[in-house]
Amino acid sequence: MNSPTVASVGEHALIERVRARAGSPPSWVTVGIGDDAAAFQSERGTFNVVTTDSLVEGVHFRLDWTAARNVGHKALATSLSDLAAMGASPRAALLSLAMPPEFSVDDFDALIDGFVALGTELRTPLVGGNLTRTTGPLVVDTTLIGGARPRRLLTRGGGQPGDQLYVTGNLGAAAAGLEMLSAGTDRSSLSAAELDCVARYERPDARLRCGVIIARSRVARACMDLSDGLADGATQLASASGTGVVIDEARIPIHPGALSWSTRTSRDAVRLALSGGEDYELLFAVAPRRRRGFAGAMGRCQPVTATLVGHLTAEPGAWLQRDGGPVPLGRGFAHFQRG
Amino acid sequence: MNSPTVASVGEHALIERVRARAGSPPSWVTVGIGDDAAAFQSERGTFNVVTTDSLVEGVHFRLDWTAARNVGHKALATSLSDLAAMGASPRAALLSLAMPPEFSVDDFDALIDGFVALGTELRTPLVGGNLTRTTGPLVVDTTLIGGARPRRLLTRGGGQPGDQLYVTGNLGAAAAGLEMLSAGTDRSSLSAAELDCVARYERPDARLRCGVIIARSRVARACMDLSDGLADGATQLASASGTGVVIDEARIPIHPGALSWSTRTSRDAVRLALSGGEDYELLFAVAPRRRRGFAGAMGRCQPVTATLVGHLTAEPGAWLQRDGGPVPLGRGFAHFQRG
Repeated sequence: MNSPTVASVGEHALIERVRARAGSPPSWVTVGIGDDAAAFQSERGTFNVVTTDSLVEGVHFRLDWTAARNVGHKALATSLSDLAAMGASPRAALLSLAMPPEFSVDDFDALIDGFVALGTELRTPLVGGNLTRTTGPLVVDTTLIGGARPRRLLTRGGGQPGDQLYVTGNLGAAAAGLEMLSAGTDRSSLSAAELDCVARYERPDARLRCGVIIARSRVARACMDLSDGLADGATQLASASGTGVVIDEARIPIHPGALSWSTRTSRDAVRLALSGGEDYELLFAVAPRRRRGFAGAMGRCQPVTATLVGHLTAEPGAWLQRDGGPVPLGRGFAHFQRG
Repeated sequence: MNSPTVASVGEHALIERVRARAGSPPSWVTVGIGDDAAAFQSERGTFNVVTTDSLVEGVHFRLDWTAARNVGHKALATSLSDLAAMGASPRAALLSLAMPPEFSVDDFDALIDGFVALGTELRTPLVGGNLTRTTGPLVVDTTLIGGARPRRLLTRGGGQPGDQLYVTGNLGAAAAGLEMLSAGTDRSSLSAAELDCVARYERPDARLRCGVIIARSRVARACMDLSDGLADGATQLASASGTGVVIDEARIPIHPGALSWSTRTSRDAVRLALSGGEDYELLFAVAPRRRRGFAGAMGRCQPVTATLVGHLTAEPGAWLQRDGGPVPLGRGFAHFQRG
């Protein structure tokens, strides 16, 4: 059964489909989908915290590898992760799609459904957006508006020499999952841990609750999310803080599925964690005297855990501490070059 | 002299370029460009009013016809127009670019400069965004966050039968300007009025001040901006208001350059006004008893004027009143089908 294309259905009908799928907005949304702009009340006493992110077909996802519903989920999750890294709570979302004319209405609906389902779970309504056509690949642009209390914001630049670096959860899963998909691996040949890597790549979880708990407890000095891998994240946090950084290779928590996949393909699992990206874990810089407070706050983040992976230094530079001595940390890769 | 490409410069360096060009943000911006998200205070006592818009190369603009600086200007102006149509004031902007690797750094800088220059003029700082690569055309996605006071919002759906429809400025200019550009017309052969059409297409003005004045005066029941032409705008406003609409052809204010261009090319100037789009004028529905109040408020919008072009009706349907009798108004065109 062939689905009609978005071009054959037209902009007005597509907007109606989005409105129907998004459901009724909460009472604090004054103007929702379908007007010139959306209007809503902020939570009392909060700053606006805003972020925007793009997923480009062929660069960040492929519809022949992953379902459109997952693309919708991931589009929102990547932006949620940016808010988590600031310690902010999401309030409302905008979704802008540039679509090739032949994009199917079934995939359009599924993408919206994936976005809305995650938004509903997190009480973050889709309040507006934009639809246009493109001669190129599908571009999914998400904007999230959230809120945080003054002096409870976690930026990248607050770290100081001697601060300890903690990472939530474990790393390398998304990059391993992407490799499994791009190698065309039969899912039935994958272990449960390896399948979890595919899930982490396709439907990442943002560490929202954890970011807010740590920000409110004021037990971390700096934070960012690891969208581009630990090497890039640590380097950027250190650079914004005006410090250097050392990561201890032996301490990096690697996802068990990424470990077994690396063993299977005879490669280095640490590389996946350092430069794989898309894990959307959080990296915190914690003053030594706040260590206990941080551990206490992390206790309230369960089941999410945090692992000590390194520290900030007074001397500039980014290093990986290895058995044989320190080596340059490198920069992982930037989204722009590799996508 | 060849400019380097964005791919050769890389994401981090590009973000630094944006930060340098955007300048220092105002004091109410707590976190600006370069962190996981931006943070800023709303104006006291306002709702958030948010909108997002895309410009796609080859669909909405062509870099061989128009300078990259104008693309940056237009990207912000189209979103400003959406806020104007709500009666909201802009507060902060986000800019998301999906760029082909060969996009030049000179064009990148010029696009940012055009965006920032208009933002500075309107005290709307660029506070963040996203950069990514694409295998397709350049996609410029703008998000604007603005504010409006409760009960001062102008939506599309507030119109009632008998309301008079007013349009600001004049129509058809942008569509005529696009025709001049796409026909490859030598600019030296164009009259001053015709050149103004090109300028209106390339660097549209949003009717921001007018939208806010009319909203605060509470003299209009409904409003939308005419991004897709008068026929589409009138039809959508009527549909959202649950009314019909009649537009009086003889009253449509047509831009003098669009008139002379139509004469030159032996075509119908009214068509440009009805379905040309991109004029970014405002369409207001005004209760007859508010006519005087509306005229008074418009007096404070000078040099912007408003012209009575039709009215809302109890019977559904959208009609164009012509000399020989009414004809269906049609729908202009939707952005999605034509771009």
